[in-house]
Amino acid sequence: MDLEKAFAYIKQNEKRLVDELVQFLKIPSISAHKEHDADVARALEYDKKKLESLGFRTEVWPTRAHAGLFAERTVSADLPTVLIYGHVDVQPVDPIELWESPPFEPRINDGKIWARGADDNKGQHYAQIAGVEAALKGGGELPVNVKFIIEADEEYDGEAMAAEFPKHGKKLACDVFVVSDSNFPDTDHPAVTLSLRGIQAVEITITGASGDKHSGEWGGMLYEPIDVLRWVIQNLKEFKTGKVLIPGFYDDVVPPNADTRAAIAQRPWNEADIAKTLGVKRLFHEEGFTVLESGTLRPTQQVNGIKGGYTGEGFKTVIGNKASAKISMRLVPNQAPEKIYQMFERHVRSLVGDMGTVEFRSFGAGKPFWSDPKSPYVQAGLRALETAFGKPAIMLAMGGSIPIVPALVETTGASCVMMGFGLPGDNLHAPNEHFPIANYLGGAKAAAAYLNEVATRVSAPARR
Amino acid sequence: MDLEKAFAYIKQNEKRLVDELVQFLKIPSISAHKEHDADVARALEYDKKKLESLGFRTEVWPTRAHAGLFAERTVSADLPTVLIYGHVDVQPVDPIELWESPPFEPRINDGKIWARGADDNKGQHYAQIAGVEAALKGGGELPVNVKFIIEADEEYDGEAMAAEFPKHGKKLACDVFVVSDSNFPDTDHPAVTLSLRGIQAVEITITGASGDKHSGEWGGMLYEPIDVLRWVIQNLKEFKTGKVLIPGFYDDVVPPNADTRAAIAQRPWNEADIAKTLGVKRLFHEEGFTVLESGTLRPTQQVNGIKGGYTGEGFKTVIGNKASAKISMRLVPNQAPEKIYQMFERHVRSLVGDMGTVEFRSFGAGKPFWSDPKSPYVQAGLRALETAFGKPAIMLAMGGSIPIVPALVETTGASCVMMGFGLPGDNLHAPNEHFPIANYLGGAKAAAAYLNEVATRVSAPARR
Repeated sequence: MDLEKAFAYIKQNEKRLVDELVQFLKIPSISAHKEHDADVARALEYDKKKLESLGFRTEVWPTRAHAGLFAERTVSADLPTVLIYGHVDVQPVDPIELWESPPFEPRINDGKIWARGADDNKGQHYAQIAGVEAALKGGGELPVNVKFIIEADEEYDGEAMAAEFPKHGKKLACDVFVVSDSNFPDTDHPAVTLSLRGIQAVEITITGASGDKHSGEWGGMLYEPIDVLRWVIQNLKEFKTGKVLIPGFYDDVVPPNADTRAAIAQRPWNEADIAKTLGVKRLFHEEGFTVLESGTLRPTQQVNGIKGGYTGEGFKTVIGNKASAKISMRLVPNQAPEKIYQMFERHVRSLVGDMGTVEFRSFGAGKPFWSDPKSPYVQAGLRALETAFGKPAIMLAMGGSIPIVPALVETTGASCVMMGFGLPGDNLHAPNEHFPIANYLGGAKAAAAYLNEVATRVSAPARR
Repeated sequence: MDLEKAFAYIKQNEKRLVDELVQFLKIPSISAHKEHDADVARALEYDKKKLESLGFRTEVWPTRAHAGLFAERTVSADLPTVLIYGHVDVQPVDPIELWESPPFEPRINDGKIWARGADDNKGQHYAQIAGVEAALKGGGELPVNVKFIIEADEEYDGEAMAAEFPKHGKKLACDVFVVSDSNFPDTDHPAVTLSLRGIQAVEITITGASGDKHSGEWGGMLYEPIDVLRWVIQNLKEFKTGKVLIPGFYDDVVPPNADTRAAIAQRPWNEADIAKTLGVKRLFHEEGFTVLESGTLRPTQQVNGIKGGYTGEGFKTVIGNKASAKISMRLVPNQAPEKIYQMFERHVRSLVGDMGTVEFRSFGAGKPFWSDPKSPYVQAGLRALETAFGKPAIMLAMGGSIPIVPALVETTGASCVMMGFGLPGDNLHAPNEHFPIANYLGGAKAAAAYLNEVATRVSAPARR
């Protein structure tokens, strides 16, 4: 393919490509609200029609929740295959009163498109579609086979689509898959996201006496649930070093290698500025790791919520008979959420002993994922971003989780490149979400450039 | 005085004395509810008229809240003076639907009077008044001078009356004061309560970042308020031994002597049964002390409430920017609440350091109090109870606080005898409060007997 012509095609069709996204954003595809089910289906149909117009063969895959879309365009069996992931559904709009314009009436202002889903993920994955169009219609033909897997339930039942993979796994076969659901750290640094942490979330509830007791009468004679809970928590993580104290917790951890640590250290990162922005005096880090590593490449444990005893106005000298905590553990390769859950439960039970009873409730689990920074597919991503945005691209680590990524790795065995085009200030999941038009069009260029990179620069052996 | 005749008087006037209490209990003197202000005044008036009919000179003392009553009957300047304390106000009745009969329509059933305030404290202090009447009218004359101090705001502003003491202190001068606001451990053991713990209650709130943060994005990089709070709490008390870790906390503690430990060990106390009743597998105790000592004679620290992060249904991967705890410390002689508060604040500030900001809010404080088990006034109380109830009396320690007791000690410099006539199952502060008639009439006998004991058996030197 001719990349220059593909880029020229984007330039010539700028207005239309923006308008197509605007039309797409008008569909209120809120997957969490039943009354928008038809809108969610309409948004999926929008992608389906578009991809069919580009010569893709499409299939709608029903799921336990909202159906998803599979599309493919095979140029030649000899060529590598790139799978592109995206999702058409969006977050609810509340609090609606904080929006400066209606969330489903896209507005262009200050070089940005303002609408719910403008960045997450309609804008980001539509940039990929626009890039494929440019490669095909401007560049002459796709230089690789391309598949799309497009979810319609990411913001609600984030596991519904992945649950269908065992049924359709072979169709997803590819050499690399591209996910545009991350962002740049700032406008000067296009970025490939190298890693996601996994998660295991659990709620524990400790019960003591058969009812609340007077703390004058019984203080000093009882194992108090709040006290037992803090004893559990203090034995989950060493406060000063950040070391998780669950026996076996680190057994399976693959520590980041020097390449990975060096790669993520490229990120522009001024700790004093970040602390100031967050309103704190200083940041935490695990002993032996930088702040950035602690928050991305290291497993950790957080108490996301805690409750016990009397929490209303004033004071009540009561020994509450229940105390609970919502605790999540962020995981790194090669930690398995189920195994971590078991270690957690065993450890907590042994700490509580006969000082109370403890109940467990497991919430979401997600697997961790890391790319190798030296992977030719990651390197291709960096070059594609640099070509499209005219600035050297860097590698990032992300502390959160995108559960479909490890699922796609497991299903396809392929490499993954997380190449998002948004910016940290785009207000994902919040009022006044927006997406810079330069990032949308730059994203389309990067998508075209990436197909070209895979076709011309990634050698066959790297493709398996 | 002739004690036998005094006892006979009680026997002869049983029906009327019970009826007087029933009339008294009909007054809904809820000090916490403004609409009952007139009822509270009416209840005070009831005592006032009664005492005047017994030849007492009375004064109503205004306070910042509900006015209280002072009454005195001087027989001779050479005789010792006994001050009797009580309160006419009662707790609110909620939850009203759990009462088996209306709380202010006293009902006699199963040998008990059922009504709000039947035990706490109308029944208990009216037994004292009945005892004084019996000593006077049955016994011939009071063998000592008697004063009454009767509060009308104990259940709401428990410090309003004590705040007036500096103004009227001299009037309260006495050799011993008697408080009937405690109870027997069971029907077989009349008891003198030997000790009260003091209290200092504080709420602390720790704030971290300027708002809630995503725990995927920031987990591992921040000092999280819940985490800092648990760090504070784990440094307030050693979990396994129960030792309070606030520097200086034990400096002023007067440890219980062997007499006191032996005295409170008399209490019938089956730990296995108590644990079973409470619904726990085992009880806690501070290292080096029995369970009973830990809950009564030892200072301790409790977290009465804790709250932070997301505590609703489900799970939110959030780092809450605020976490708070309501913490109380139970104190023993010679710990001063204000000094303890200062140590607490200093310690917590040093623990939090620059990992967040911490706010303090001080709630109620109360001083601790112990009687010497060998005190002749306490011994007189034991004998009076034995004479009245026909069973040997024991000594108890109480873990809670009655703030007016240390205030009366400070004002009068007198000895204190806590001689309550209730039973643990009387439902104080709860629905279906009641008071056994045998305890009411026995209490009256004990009150008369106590005056006799002080007059005849406590030697002059012990009286100051």
